Amino acid sequence: MKVLVVGATGTLGAAVTTLLATRHDVVTASRTGPTDVKVDIVDPASIAAMYEQVGRVDAVACTAGSVPFKEVGDLSREDVESAALNKLLGQVELVRRGLDAVADNGSFTLITGILAGEPVRTGSMSSMANGGIDAFVRGAAVELPRGLRINSVSPTVFTESAEAYDAVFPGFPPVDVATAALAYRRSIEGAQTGQTFRVGW
Amino acid sequence: MKVLVVGATGTLGAAVTTLLATRHDVVTASRTGPTDVKVDIVDPASIAAMYEQVGRVDAVACTAGSVPFKEVGDLSREDVESAALNKLLGQVELVRRGLDAVADNGSFTLITGILAGEPVRTGSMSSMANGGIDAFVRGAAVELPRGLRINSVSPTVFTESAEAYDAVFPGFPPVDVATAALAYRRSIEGAQTGQTFRVGW
Ligand SMILES: NC(=O)c1ccc[n+]([C@@H]2O[C@H](COP(=O)([O-])OP(=O)(O)OC[C@H]3O[C@@H](n4cnc5c(N)ncnc54)[C@H](OP(=O)(O)O)[C@@H]3O)[C@@H](O)[C@H]2O)c1
Ligand SMILES: NC(=O)c1ccc[n+]([C@@H]2O[C@H](COP(=O)([O-])OP(=O)(O)OC[C@H]3O[C@@H](n4cnc5c(N)ncnc54)[C@H](OP(=O)(O)O)[C@@H]3O)[C@@H](O)[C@H]2O)c1
Repeated sequence: MKVLVVGATGTLGAAVTTLLATRHDVVTASRTGPTDVKVDIVDPASIAAMYEQVGRVDAVACTAGSVPFKEVGDLSREDVESAALNKLLGQVELVRRGLDAVADNGSFTLITGILAGEPVRTGSMSSMANGGIDAFVRGAAVELPRGLRINSVSPTVFTESAEAYDAVFPGFPPVDVATAALAYRRSIEGAQTGQTFRVGW
Repeated sequence: MKVLVVGATGTLGAAVTTLLATRHDVVTASRTGPTDVKVDIVDPASIAAMYEQVGRVDAVACTAGSVPFKEVGDLSREDVESAALNKLLGQVELVRRGLDAVADNGSFTLITGILAGEPVRTGSMSSMANGGIDAFVRGAAVELPRGLRINSVSPTVFTESAEAYDAVFPGFPPVDVATAALAYRRSIEGAQTGQTFRVGW
């Protein structure tokens, strides 16, 4: 399969690329590179240009998407809009624009995370974006054409990120990022749709 | 208690207003009125002006919020942004701006719906907004100051709307809107926070 990995230079994206590259033809994308393509998921025109450049693919795997971490009382309107435009609408736009780019029986795999279900202080925008994507995936799955499938991967904090995020995730058992990468393989090569694959929680 | 009901002229809002008015001092708000105050939840300045006008309240109950119903392949970028700006960010803004307006131990009650969990064709934007709010509520609840609480009410289709929405919700058992209104009372007068009160599903 030809698989487009968006966010391929990140902690998760690199692990997904490494795993999938042993079995598939992987095309990498990220905002600043070095990757096969550059894309800013916040910008719909940039997403359209990416699909134009990459051509037909069998799977889109998104491992990008960020949100501000602040207490609700400290969030500016700009913080709220940036959470919505990046991890939430950025991934919806990858699907909306990607409908014509993905081959019959292909798939979309989006990234969410444990904060959809288990809250932490400063995490409300992450919760919002993750919960919105997990539910969007369920909603979109029932109507995608041509056998297309869509799932989300929802990991707890990665072992590789645990030290940096220690204060935000006190006492959360971490999971190796390689385990989270397996969920992408399961989504892409498996048969399920409309699912959220939890990893480590 | 002094309770601000946003969307008070709607099917749900009228039922919530009727129930709460027997026990509380209700201030009504909607986009076009007739209500005590006018507000457009899409417009942050309008939300700020509403709180300015209404002054200190003990509870904010939102029964407003709309999203486009279209298949994913028919959604324009504008449809996606409008879903995000209205039911999702509109309600987040009611909380963000309302933090200083709600008295100690007061509450926010937001509206979501069954499509967060049970998908229907054309419902992906509703799923996204509902899932985003349900998760935001969990996230915000753990850090709200001064004993403030926050919950969401997630009804299935109302008996009163069942005929109009019959094609979208085939075979979904409806629930009376008065039963959904009870969940607002439970949220406002009860002690729970970070909860999604499902009604009829
Ligand atoms: N780290 C964790 O413990 C953890 C746990 C659960 C879930 N997650 C989720 O997993 C995802 C990836 O996390 P990570 O730790 O791997 O992040 P990361 O190391 O910061 O990597 C992010 C990747 O996404 C790209 N990217 C960022 N913004 C982009 C944009 N606007 N358009 C296109 N590409 C963009 C980055 O490229 P550039 O560097 O060029 O911008 C990079 O390739 C996030 O959504 C995160 O919430 C992470
Ligand atoms: N109806 C159902 O079966 C059902 C089931 C589950 C969940 N829900 C959810 O419940 C909520 C209310 O549904 P409903 O059927 O009661 O709707 P509705 O009858 O159309 O009433 C909507 C109310 O919200 C107000 N409103 C709309 N847009 C607004 C805005 N931008 N700013 C401020 N107020 C605004 C309306 O005022 P104006 O008329 O002046 O605009 C009206 O008071 C929706 O979020 C819906 O998704 C409904």
